[in-house]
Order: sequence, then structure tokens, then C-alpha cells
Amino acid sequence: MTDDNIVYIGNKPVMNYVLAVVTQFNNGASEVAVKARGKAISRAVDAVEVSRNRFLPESKIKEIKIGTEKIATDRGDSNVSIIEIVMSK
Amino acid sequence: MTDDNIVYIGNKPVMNYVLAVVTQFNNGASEVAVKARGKAISRAVDAVEVSRNRFLPESKIKEIKIGTEKIATDRGDSNVSIIEIVMSK
Repeated sequence: MTDDNIVYIGNKPVMNYVLAVVTQFNNGASEVAVKARGKAISRAVDAVEVSRNRFLPESKIKEIKIGTEKIATDRGDSNVSIIEIVMSK
Repeated sequence: MTDDNIVYIGNKPVMNYVLAVVTQFNNGASEVAVKARGKAISRAVDAVEVSRNRFLPESKIKEIKIGTEKIATDRGDSNVSIIEIVMSK
């Protein structure tokens, strides 16, 4: 898997990320990693679920990892939760 | 694992759920399942990460599952994403 096969989830509507995931698979990727942190984690799960249920019924969830990252903020370091969901076709 | 070892994540502060997880383990549970749906999914990951990093360093993440559930709303059925994170000691 190359770095190209990562979809980072931000604050846009879920369907933007669903389209990104589906496009990666249509371009020949065998795996796509969906990554998010903080409040975007819920949206990452939504994006994976909508992708699978509506567009990629043959895809599987290969791995789900969670963890914690330190991020620098105006008020010092802060911990933020992260998730990585690897989908495979 | 009995049904007692489930912590459902809602809209309360994260530390409430961290306390619930730690209490379950302290009461002798060998596994605790943390479940959430919709926007609470991010908080579920936070609760597991804070529990592990601050209070239960010896615990492991045994399994993470995601899925979709139909819920009845005023405006008909709606799909909501769910997560289940099983922690073990």
C-alpha cells in the first residue's frame, strides 16, 4: 500500500469522503486507509459504512486501529484520539 | 463475558465513561465492551484511550467492530454508524 491510498477525514460532508474512497478503489487500489482524529472519528466510521453498504459491497474491513496523538495547540500540548480503518477489496 | 460488562457511551463528559470502564475492571471483569453510535463514536475512542493511557496500562484492545444500525426517527428510518471496542486485561 502506498501513501496515495489514504483518505483523511475532515469537516466536509461524509459523501465527499465516500467519493474519495470509491475513487481510490476504482483507480486500482487493493486497500484504502481511512484516517481521522478527534471529532472526525465518527465521520470516518460513517464514510466507511456508507462506502461499503452503498458502493462497495464486496469490500472488507481489514483492520481498525485506534490510538492517541499529541498535537501542539496555542495552550500547549493536547492529546487527541485517532482512528485508522483499512478497507480491502 | 456477560451483558454487565458493557459501557454505553452517551453525551456525558468522557471521564464519566472512563470511570465506568475502570470500575468494571476493578470489579473483576476480564473484558469490557465500549459501545457507541453516531457522534458518540469519537467519545468512545476517547474513553478507551484515556482508560488505557492513564488508568489501565496493562489492558489491551481485543477487538474493534464497526457497523450500521437502523433507528426509527420522527421522519422515518435512519441509518446510524456504530462501534464496539472490546478491551481486555
